[in-house]
Amino acid sequence: SWLHSSAALQQSSPPPQVKFFPAAEGVMLPTGSFKDRVAFITGGGTGLGRAMTTTLSQLGAQCVIASRKLEVLQKTAEEISNQTGNKVHVVQCDVRDPQAVSRCVDQMETLTGLPDVVINNAAGNFVCPSERLSLNGWKSITDIVLNGTAFITLEIGKRLIQNQKGASFLAITTIYAESGSGFVVPSASAKAGVEALYKSLAAEWGRYGHRFNIIQPGPIKTKGAFSRLDPTGVFEKSMLGRIPVGRLGTPGEIANLAAYMSSDYATWMSGAVIRFDGGEYVSMAGEFNELIKVTPDQWKIMEAMIRSTKGS
Amino acid sequence: SWLHSSAALQQSSPPPQVKFFPAAEGVMLPTGSFKDRVAFITGGGTGLGRAMTTTLSQLGAQCVIASRKLEVLQKTAEEISNQTGNKVHVVQCDVRDPQAVSRCVDQMETLTGLPDVVINNAAGNFVCPSERLSLNGWKSITDIVLNGTAFITLEIGKRLIQNQKGASFLAITTIYAESGSGFVVPSASAKAGVEALYKSLAAEWGRYGHRFNIIQPGPIKTKGAFSRLDPTGVFEKSMLGRIPVGRLGTPGEIANLAAYMSSDYATWMSGAVIRFDGGEYVSMAGEFNELIKVTPDQWKIMEAMIRSTKGS
Amino acid sequence: SWLHSSAALQQSSPPPQVKFFPAAEGVMLPTGSFKDRVAFITGGGTGLGRAMTTTLSQLGAQCVIASRKLEVLQKTAEEISNQTGNKVHVVQCDVRDPQAVSRCVDQMETLTGLPDVVINNAAGNFVCPSERLSLNGWKSITDIVLNGTAFITLEIGKRLIQNQKGASFLAITTIYAESGSGFVVPSASAKAGVEALYKSLAAEWGRYGHRFNIIQPGPIKTKGAFSRLDPTGVFEKSMLGRIPVGRLGTPGEIANLAAYMSSDYATWMSGAVIRFDGGEYVSMAGEFNELIKVTPDQWKIMEAMIRSTKGS
Amino acid sequence: SWLHSSAALQQSSPPPQVKFFPAAEGVMLPTGSFKDRVAFITGGGTGLGRAMTTTLSQLGAQCVIASRKLEVLQKTAEEISNQTGNKVHVVQCDVRDPQAVSRCVDQMETLTGLPDVVINNAAGNFVCPSERLSLNGWKSITDIVLNGTAFITLEIGKRLIQNQKGASFLAITTIYAESGSGFVVPSASAKAGVEALYKSLAAEWGRYGHRFNIIQPGPIKTKGAFSRLDPTGVFEKSMLGRIPVGRLGTPGEIANLAAYMSSDYATWMSGAVIRFDGGEYVSMAGEFNELIKVTPDQWKIMEAMIRSTKGS
Ligand SMILES: NC(=O)c1ccc[n+]([C@@H]2O[C@H](COP(=O)([O-])OP(=O)(O)OC[C@H]3O[C@@H](n4cnc5c(N)ncnc54)[C@H](OP(=O)(O)O)[C@@H]3O)[C@@H](O)[C@H]2O)c1
Ligand SMILES: NC(=O)c1ccc[n+]([C@@H]2O[C@H](COP(=O)([O-])OP(=O)(O)OC[C@H]3O[C@@H](n4cnc5c(N)ncnc54)[C@H](OP(=O)(O)O)[C@@H]3O)[C@@H](O)[C@H]2O)c1
Ligand SMILES: NC(=O)c1ccc[n+]([C@@H]2O[C@H](COP(=O)([O-])OP(=O)(O)OC[C@H]3O[C@@H](n4cnc5c(N)ncnc54)[C@H](OP(=O)(O)O)[C@@H]3O)[C@@H](O)[C@H]2O)c1
Ligand SMILES: NC(=O)c1ccc[n+]([C@@H]2O[C@H](COP(=O)([O-])OP(=O)(O)OC[C@H]3O[C@@H](n4cnc5c(N)ncnc54)[C@H](OP(=O)(O)O)[C@@H]3O)[C@@H](O)[C@H]2O)c1
Repeated sequence: SWLHSSAALQQSSPPPQVKFFPAAEGVMLPTGSFKDRVAFITGGGTGLGRAMTTTLSQLGAQCVIASRKLEVLQKTAEEISNQTGNKVHVVQCDVRDPQAVSRCVDQMETLTGLPDVVINNAAGNFVCPSERLSLNGWKSITDIVLNGTAFITLEIGKRLIQNQKGASFLAITTIYAESGSGFVVPSASAKAGVEALYKSLAAEWGRYGHRFNIIQPGPIKTKGAFSRLDPTGVFEKSMLGRIPVGRLGTPGEIANLAAYMSSDYATWMSGAVIRFDGGEYVSMAGEFNELIKVTPDQWKIMEAMIRSTKGS
Repeated sequence: SWLHSSAALQQSSPPPQVKFFPAAEGVMLPTGSFKDRVAFITGGGTGLGRAMTTTLSQLGAQCVIASRKLEVLQKTAEEISNQTGNKVHVVQCDVRDPQAVSRCVDQMETLTGLPDVVINNAAGNFVCPSERLSLNGWKSITDIVLNGTAFITLEIGKRLIQNQKGASFLAITTIYAESGSGFVVPSASAKAGVEALYKSLAAEWGRYGHRFNIIQPGPIKTKGAFSRLDPTGVFEKSMLGRIPVGRLGTPGEIANLAAYMSSDYATWMSGAVIRFDGGEYVSMAGEFNELIKVTPDQWKIMEAMIRSTKGS
Repeated sequence: SWLHSSAALQQSSPPPQVKFFPAAEGVMLPTGSFKDRVAFITGGGTGLGRAMTTTLSQLGAQCVIASRKLEVLQKTAEEISNQTGNKVHVVQCDVRDPQAVSRCVDQMETLTGLPDVVINNAAGNFVCPSERLSLNGWKSITDIVLNGTAFITLEIGKRLIQNQKGASFLAITTIYAESGSGFVVPSASAKAGVEALYKSLAAEWGRYGHRFNIIQPGPIKTKGAFSRLDPTGVFEKSMLGRIPVGRLGTPGEIANLAAYMSSDYATWMSGAVIRFDGGEYVSMAGEFNELIKVTPDQWKIMEAMIRSTKGS
Repeated sequence: SWLHSSAALQQSSPPPQVKFFPAAEGVMLPTGSFKDRVAFITGGGTGLGRAMTTTLSQLGAQCVIASRKLEVLQKTAEEISNQTGNKVHVVQCDVRDPQAVSRCVDQMETLTGLPDVVINNAAGNFVCPSERLSLNGWKSITDIVLNGTAFITLEIGKRLIQNQKGASFLAITTIYAESGSGFVVPSASAKAGVEALYKSLAAEWGRYGHRFNIIQPGPIKTKGAFSRLDPTGVFEKSMLGRIPVGRLGTPGEIANLAAYMSSDYATWMSGAVIRFDGGEYVSMAGEFNELIKVTPDQWKIMEAMIRSTKGS
């Protein structure tokens, strides 16, 4: 069965094109690009948030990471600081709670002042058929993803405006935010909401010196995402088969993109939505892409059949 | 000033093209198209919801309308029933409250059985600069629009699935759901969430006999929308100037579209998003559309200037 | 092999949800909706164009159909006229040739006067890996689809403007116009161009009384489309598996939608793009939709695995 | 009048937020990022193409630039080589002519071998009401933009496939490719076609080691674009007022983005479409964004009016 066919698939070697698409993990931007800058990253203790924090820290930023698990944050902060020599601060914060968000920004103001760079990366997600989804399940995801992002963004934004300070905001959404997707419906809905929020504010708050952009990642292996989206590991194999680049993304790659978008090199970028997925989305969405299975010999047969068609 | 210039504008007559675009208010579908069907419409007591209910009732449906204000619902129900001869039921329900939603669907099951047609039309909205928006303001809108739609849809959907009954679901969003818009940010975010919800379920629940579609209306004069979006009336004039068709939409027009999408004529439509806005969206979004102000004589000058350009 | 597995699949019965989605083939709009109207349909001799012509003719329109094969046109015209009692005119025209287009519109002016309804439906397409595509192959498709549509639209539009006459324009594109698709690349590119053309003119020519809309059909069985896109019949089976509604569309269904969009009931619709595909597009595009294969029992296992996940 | 109001506007100083968004003109990527790489840029002699060539050359690439005007190319090539120390080759080529394209690629193979980086940047455009557009005008733009891009891409792609060589392809389109826009209709249509072409090939040719991405620039002052799009200079002022970032883009900024997308740091990016426009698109498209004109005092009045609204 589909669920148990993973063993066989596990063996499969990566598709040949992977050799053309090596992942460059080194930091891309010039040293010191974020010197004297403060970066605030939600969910910065793990996965992609951790990778983005690491890169910004290496580039000179003072980082503040926030999420629920203080110990995880502290461990990550220490490890990154040790590696980069730049301070990483931690603030415990459940983004679903407006008061916690307010206290978190208070704390940041004390620690570092208001940020120059904000990355809304915290999220929750799990796969579930919608008819099995409880209203609590719905709220557990949308509260983190949509309300949490809004609370953080509005709280920091208002204070920046009052202080006449500019900033770059980045939100991490997903390739299914636009198309929607079954089986991750609360996440799809909330991430779509985040995209509208950021596009709206890009238009409205430019006059205050704020930019708002979005990355839509395709699959990048992190424990958080994969343990709740692909607990059996079957789905990963199937994704690989339809990613034109032939591999998953890496945290370092998204960190370089996020650093670029948050940097002075991108001050003219606002309201942008960048899909970063190895081509997976266009490959899934295009109606005839499954013809990739047709072999050259079969094409010859099919071409002959097409040529012999008469009339409409 | 912009806010006080409305008096002068009020006088302005409609643009000449309006004569080509008369609104057809009569019911479009064949008589009896919804005979023996049950239609459930949230916010069916006022505005667009009332218009859609009227049309479905005229076409033979038994309608159930639900919102907070029982008296408004009752008055509307009676008026429509009197007009069409078909029963319109009312259920008081605040869609933000999962338990109220569950009770509402219980009541409907008793009154009419589960519905064949569901229209998620209830919403809240008001204009506000985002830096003046309170977290309560944010939640008051997103709770109705996104959570309310999800609660209604999941509750009814699950029961339909259990009863192996098919249905058509329709959500009313807005033309700024995709692009986002400043000054209505909670609405933009929540409506974008609704669109993702409906596209997701279109894919996931087709197998249970359910279709999910979306209408994105442009401006249609209703008391509910205009009193909170354009309290001074200035904005309306400005909108008219950029709507290619030269007029606002009418409730009857959207009711015909909604009836079509909910009918057996559209059983092959699912996951569709229909913009219905007199062309306003494409007119705003296209970068060079403001050249519509250039007169024929000025074009001659500009063409001469362009022709005389040498090189790149 | 994939190509030869069709025999086995051929047997497969339609998915169970099809019973919820019967195709309504009768004419939807009120009798006489197009009385005293002239409708011009390219490619009206076959397939979808023929179906749209039939419906418009039944609704009272005088139709003019145009394409290359005069005999095919004549046969169709006669059959439709006999059925509906309304005259169907034919004009031979290769839409790739600007002079032929100009002569065609001359002829129409003589026969019926300028049209109230224009449907750009003529197209060419065939499947081919892009590395096997000749430049002639590229041009053979883009010349018909993009240039042909532009020539027809500009020629008729200019004359309507000169005569101060309004009209409804409709273009038939495809669900892969936005996403792109491998193996039908010239068609994807040209259809995307047509969509931009129509959205652009919706904004620009509203002031002249013109509306411009688009239908993106999913798979509807016609000889023209299927013989060149799915010569072996294998692809059809695979499409069925991912169409939420569980069946292909029918020509009558698209004819009803096209008639609505071209009618007075839709005078407020302009710049709209209506996907009509049984949900195929959202089903393909959503990243997690293949989890539809997971059985209820497997979900229980997966849910347990997800619940037992600790940490991010 | 609108056309003659430019003098007054000319005086206007940049909006205050510009101080938050300085353009970083230095090269972003690490030195040597394109060492031993060959980059082919159409229209590389002027404007944005010249800027992208300069940046790639500074980063170590051997560049080949191609367009119609040999002298312009030669002058540019010499200037860039002198500045960067890396060879810039020139090939005369009219991209509309398939045979010229084939000869051009022959020449490149001799000069440098097949490219690692391809940038399709050549284009033509001019503003014109569509009813004044001749069919020659239509073809002059679509032949360069759509056919030219296709010819270059297919010709190079096929040879790369035969040689089992990977490459990054980038196309420069525009923010109105998706929305369409009046008054630049051939450009809108052709650029939309280019986007579909690149998204299609991203899906189809990933297996051969090719990536395909797109930049949609907003307004960046170049002689080529502005002399034919805004001959009077009036439009520029009006654009500035709606760009959230408050300024036009610079060639250096787009060159850094293009270099990133073409580099090894972006090997996981394919099928992406990056809008780079200072936020102009979302600002135009969002229905309520013109409320930016409302002053804080007016908001107080409006809020009071909204609060006093009773009922729906
Ligand atoms: N990995 C992928 O393939 C992929 C693909 C598309 C999108 N994404 C997006 O990328 C982002 C990062 O995901 P990831 O893969 O790195 O997964 P992850 O490691 O699980 O990251 C999620 C982070 O969010 C934090 N978080 C969760 N709930 C929170 C709350 N209520 N308040 C504050 N913080 C909270 C978590 O920390 P605590 O538990 O300490 O609170 C955790 O650090 C997410 O937005 C995700 O949607 C990932
Ligand atoms: N009119 C336009 O120009 C326009 C444009 C774009 C989109 N739309 C959309 O069209 C739909 C209808 O709007 P409209 O113009 O007809 O405005 P409306 O008359 O104000 O309709 C809103 C309806 O929602 C109901 N509602 C609000 N909160 C509710 C709650 N918590 N629980 C249950 N029902 C609730 C209201 O009834 P109660 O007060 O009795 O609860 C009311 O009947 C909305 O989705 C709106 O976003 C309208
Ligand atoms: N069927 C589907 O599943 C499907 C799906 C998506 C989109 N579509 C679109 O629907 C439309 C109709 O397709 P169909 O399935 O009905 O296929 P069809 O029967 O092959 O229709 C194509 C029509 O275009 C005409 N045509 C082709 N080249 C022409 C030229 N140079 N000048 C004038 N007319 C020309 C043909 O007539 P002559 O040979 O006499 O010229 C024919 O009547 C097309 O735009 C197609 O792209 C169809
Ligand atoms: N600047 C902007 O604001 C802006 C905004 C959006 C998009 N863009 C896009 O950016 C790209 C560059 O534009 P630009 O502003 O740099 O304008 P530009 O300087 O006019 O560049 C156009 C280039 O295309 C070349 N070209 C034109 N026709 C050609 C043909 N038939 N064959 C080969 N080459 C041809 C020209 O060289 P020859 O004359 O020597 O052939 C010229 O070098 C274009 O794709 C444009 O659409 C620009």
